[in-house]
Amino acid sequence: MLIVMKSDATRSDIDRVVEIIKKLGLRGHELPGESRTAIGITGNKGSVDPTHFENLTGVADAIRVTKPYKLISKDLRPEQSVIKVGNGFIGGGDLAIIAGPCAVENPGQVFKVAEAVAASGAKFFRGGAFKPRTSPYAFQGMGEDGLKILSEVRERFDLNIVTEAMDEHGIDLVEKYGDCIQIGARNMQNFSLLKYAGRTRKPVLLKRGLSATLDEFLLAAEYIMAEGNYDVILCERGIRTFSDHARNTMDLSIVPAIRRLSHLPVIVDPSHGTGHNYMVNPMARAGVAVGADGLIIEVHPCPEEALCDGAQALTPLQYSELVDQVRKIHDLVGEKTFAQV
Amino acid sequence: MLIVMKSDATRSDIDRVVEIIKKLGLRGHELPGESRTAIGITGNKGSVDPTHFENLTGVADAIRVTKPYKLISKDLRPEQSVIKVGNGFIGGGDLAIIAGPCAVENPGQVFKVAEAVAASGAKFFRGGAFKPRTSPYAFQGMGEDGLKILSEVRERFDLNIVTEAMDEHGIDLVEKYGDCIQIGARNMQNFSLLKYAGRTRKPVLLKRGLSATLDEFLLAAEYIMAEGNYDVILCERGIRTFSDHARNTMDLSIVPAIRRLSHLPVIVDPSHGTGHNYMVNPMARAGVAVGADGLIIEVHPCPEEALCDGAQALTPLQYSELVDQVRKIHDLVGEKTFAQV
Amino acid sequence: MLIVMKSDATRSDIDRVVEIIKKLGLRGHELPGESRTAIGITGNKGSVDPTHFENLTGVADAIRVTKPYKLISKDLRPEQSVIKVGNGFIGGGDLAIIAGPCAVENPGQVFKVAEAVAASGAKFFRGGAFKPRTSPYAFQGMGEDGLKILSEVRERFDLNIVTEAMDEHGIDLVEKYGDCIQIGARNMQNFSLLKYAGRTRKPVLLKRGLSATLDEFLLAAEYIMAEGNYDVILCERGIRTFSDHARNTMDLSIVPAIRRLSHLPVIVDPSHGTGHNYMVNPMARAGVAVGADGLIIEVHPCPEEALCDGAQALTPLQYSELVDQVRKIHDLVGEKTFAQV
Amino acid sequence: MLIVMKSDATRSDIDRVVEIIKKLGLRGHELPGESRTAIGITGNKGSVDPTHFENLTGVADAIRVTKPYKLISKDLRPEQSVIKVGNGFIGGGDLAIIAGPCAVENPGQVFKVAEAVAASGAKFFRGGAFKPRTSPYAFQGMGEDGLKILSEVRERFDLNIVTEAMDEHGIDLVEKYGDCIQIGARNMQNFSLLKYAGRTRKPVLLKRGLSATLDEFLLAAEYIMAEGNYDVILCERGIRTFSDHARNTMDLSIVPAIRRLSHLPVIVDPSHGTGHNYMVNPMARAGVAVGADGLIIEVHPCPEEALCDGAQALTPLQYSELVDQVRKIHDLVGEKTFAQV
Repeated sequence: MLIVMKSDATRSDIDRVVEIIKKLGLRGHELPGESRTAIGITGNKGSVDPTHFENLTGVADAIRVTKPYKLISKDLRPEQSVIKVGNGFIGGGDLAIIAGPCAVENPGQVFKVAEAVAASGAKFFRGGAFKPRTSPYAFQGMGEDGLKILSEVRERFDLNIVTEAMDEHGIDLVEKYGDCIQIGARNMQNFSLLKYAGRTRKPVLLKRGLSATLDEFLLAAEYIMAEGNYDVILCERGIRTFSDHARNTMDLSIVPAIRRLSHLPVIVDPSHGTGHNYMVNPMARAGVAVGADGLIIEVHPCPEEALCDGAQALTPLQYSELVDQVRKIHDLVGEKTFAQV
Repeated sequence: MLIVMKSDATRSDIDRVVEIIKKLGLRGHELPGESRTAIGITGNKGSVDPTHFENLTGVADAIRVTKPYKLISKDLRPEQSVIKVGNGFIGGGDLAIIAGPCAVENPGQVFKVAEAVAASGAKFFRGGAFKPRTSPYAFQGMGEDGLKILSEVRERFDLNIVTEAMDEHGIDLVEKYGDCIQIGARNMQNFSLLKYAGRTRKPVLLKRGLSATLDEFLLAAEYIMAEGNYDVILCERGIRTFSDHARNTMDLSIVPAIRRLSHLPVIVDPSHGTGHNYMVNPMARAGVAVGADGLIIEVHPCPEEALCDGAQALTPLQYSELVDQVRKIHDLVGEKTFAQV
Repeated sequence: MLIVMKSDATRSDIDRVVEIIKKLGLRGHELPGESRTAIGITGNKGSVDPTHFENLTGVADAIRVTKPYKLISKDLRPEQSVIKVGNGFIGGGDLAIIAGPCAVENPGQVFKVAEAVAASGAKFFRGGAFKPRTSPYAFQGMGEDGLKILSEVRERFDLNIVTEAMDEHGIDLVEKYGDCIQIGARNMQNFSLLKYAGRTRKPVLLKRGLSATLDEFLLAAEYIMAEGNYDVILCERGIRTFSDHARNTMDLSIVPAIRRLSHLPVIVDPSHGTGHNYMVNPMARAGVAVGADGLIIEVHPCPEEALCDGAQALTPLQYSELVDQVRKIHDLVGEKTFAQV
Repeated sequence: MLIVMKSDATRSDIDRVVEIIKKLGLRGHELPGESRTAIGITGNKGSVDPTHFENLTGVADAIRVTKPYKLISKDLRPEQSVIKVGNGFIGGGDLAIIAGPCAVENPGQVFKVAEAVAASGAKFFRGGAFKPRTSPYAFQGMGEDGLKILSEVRERFDLNIVTEAMDEHGIDLVEKYGDCIQIGARNMQNFSLLKYAGRTRKPVLLKRGLSATLDEFLLAAEYIMAEGNYDVILCERGIRTFSDHARNTMDLSIVPAIRRLSHLPVIVDPSHGTGHNYMVNPMARAGVAVGADGLIIEVHPCPEEALCDGAQALTPLQYSELVDQVRKIHDLVGEKTFAQV
């Protein structure tokens, strides 16, 4: 923490700041400048709350220096984490592909998609049994019955199941039927849910909130890890901005930014990230080219009849073309990416 | 819903759209234009999902016409709702003032603030026992012990208690000890929590999410009401934008926008909305001038020692000056506001 | 400037930073911390460019401390500036009201509005002769003929004319026919235009850009002042965010933020700031309550026939009601505002 | 345009809307629904201004249907445009690479970079002689002397010169010394400048404004084309959002969105788009993978000594690695991209 004094701060203003720093058990270092004095703080192990200082007389600004996370950090674990999800892995040299319908609607729909997903060589199947819908009158998902269908997909197609939980009961059920607990964008700062997920034994796919900064995203992962569950996969799924040609704005530069700070794997979701069928393939290619560890893609046998988010779902044919293309890009950039960032 | 066809759509493209409309049990109305055809849909009671149409050949756009909310709407209830909170009211002609510390820290701190709040004539006391903190290593609140202190405030100062719940267990506790359940911005689309709050008997203060549109905000209230709890108070607390001189950007035009659509009362939170002590008073005045039904204000006996959000807390003296000023503005604009929007 | 080193920075990394600081003619101060070293820089008169340091080995961050503006600053001029515009003043204790149609369409329309504006006691008339329109096919304004009509308004109604210039030729014409040069939001960082305006003798009303931060806004004013024209009035007119119930999001907390840093007067534009007739009055009230020095309001004798932005224009009757209301609020908060911030 | 009436609109409200439609020389089509009536408008050739209707009694909404652009549209020209810039081409099957320093500082610096750019096989050289700087006290560029250095680059290295103009005088000079006029993000809606550029004979590289929507971006191009200059290249360079890990948020999905609507070529700028050296390569790869026609990249012989934007500049070595990598990705996705969107 660095306290910047105003140019007209008096000696006693400075002394008062130094005194408060001492009271907090820390050390203050005066740094007199041409026109104003700054006071550096050391001795803190975590971060210091700037609000102790911001409103004191003579203080112009309190600037945070140390980052507030630990477990997600490369300082703690310099090598990349590889997360085991069922019998597959996310985060190593392979490109992880998680595909399936937005919502589980019925066994026929699900098995049809699962067939295409298995045929593509992907190891992970997604599908929502609990759906966070903006309106209470929209289809809310099949619940436990949906999870049973997903569980059957695992048996019949040897696919590992990634599915969303919206509350503690949901987490219990996903632990029972699935292989990876997805926490959605709207729950990224549902701290009670994060803590609960941190006490399970299943890996967690954590989606970035619509207005989450990088720090907030990493600290949400830190919440899960602080409870003892270190198997967290991060997912960029687009943020909310003024830009209106797509449903969200995919913020792909977060991939190298995460690589620089954290050992956790990061995947991207071009389906929710764009909301438009025709953008999914190009943005999936971009996500792999930027260095993501995987993709999560929505596939529906008949998008125009989907109960949820049909506009962004790929047909099985479009999906298999996408997998071909992104695998080639991944082969090309894979090694370089890891070397570079 | 209006389906706009591309200028090169064929007869059979149009027929396919009309056929799907029929399948959904609705009626399609062709509307041939100079250069393209549009197809209106009627017969729907709720809203129609545009994704049934967006990717069909020949379709340029599917435009939603009907709004998806019911219970929050002035169509349902043209007169303004007045919500009873403990022995006070929010939403009538009086200006509701909810004040107190960000976090409950200890009885001494709380009672000192409560004294100032009661002295100001306010009827509602706020204070967090469960704190949604960005970092898992920050102070997380006193929990049930904090609620007991708040409960004592009600007895000693005749103030009604507004306090946040972050999960179902928290809601149960707030029902027991408090008068109004606050649902925070980060949980505005925690749909499981909204539903649970909808099944309690206590009024709910719902804060707008950091990236929530007006529609999403109103639909979050609709979630609570759809479960049978009609006592919802909306709260604007700033949104997340690029603008960096304040912690959030207060979006005050949402007040007249809500008035136009909904019968629910709406208050504003200039403390979280700005994050800076010196902005709280001017933005509180603005919130009352724009026509809000009330304010929620953070007060701390010694802001620079606060365990949470000290930079935005007012001293008891600053708070009482604020109350004086906003009451005068409210007297001035009160009647006109209600007449006008 | 503060250079924060990584925790694994070596002695020679630190030496390299200090050496570069020296090369720039400045002094570096080492500040060793628990887990990392920071290096303070002093001796600079303006701000130091962080890019000299950001990519050096061992550097974690380069944090700017000194603000980059001078002439707009209260450090330079502690008392509030009052700007003379024609025979009126903006920035003193009086509330400045600038009103008129979005675009000058014909003498009849303009005189009808001018009559209402003069009757309200306002001293300033606005109206666009050059219109910045998103589409090249939309009405672009009447040009010099429009300015002549405005000039006639000054003679007949004793109103001072505020009108937009989009290029150097436009500035020359506004200097000839008008009293105040408006620079629109889309030109806030048209630095050539700012410099040209800085070399005129007429005051400049500078609108905040749609995505301008406070610093960028103040530095745009600094561009004008650095050329010798100190008569700048700032105008908040809404920023671009995801929020979609209004055309823009009015960021009213910029008013106290400007007051804290600058001596320049600041007004608000609730017409462009909201884009909706029914929001103009409430947001005008909010703007005055927050402490703005004035308002700029669009008025049209028949809004639904306006050639430009009719949805936000007030009728003359609505306008006169607004003036009554905001004057009362201004009387109430005026003195307190200046005392406080 | 579709006018949606309120559910309580009266017969005479509807008649009034239809009457105004007639007055405008258009045709209204009533479309009675379950709970409300909509009125479609046909007969318009361009777009209809919704403000004619929004404030009429009984009107709930006025929804725009027809897009307001013509010349940029694929309707007008279905095949992709290829723009000749000097002796090179942008927009065909080849990947166009434009590289060079942010600012022209001196001949030594420029020639050193030009050597690396020519060696990489790129055909286009960038470098700013007029720099739009946020602060009036920052380095503003070398002006005409800088252009002369660039002109020498063309002679010595056979590179085509792309350089920014900020005003009419600058455009005249770029026409004289350069091959392509760059219009920067801050001037994207400087309509006078766009018109002036539309009357030159040189191609224009138009950068997206920091808060420009897709429609606004395309209409800015339309301004240039409407004056007779059809040689416009679009450039995505990042938008302004709350996200703070990069200087801007690159909005790559605009590439497929532009492809769908327009025949104009589109390139991306990962240097300004990220602002950080370590992100430039990954985001350049992403930009090529998403289907852009080219890249614009900042290169500096010694980034930490750059007078402008050093943090984002690549060294010549980093640049040549980047070119190798993106060429391979382009070979891979090139044909597919064009086939698909």
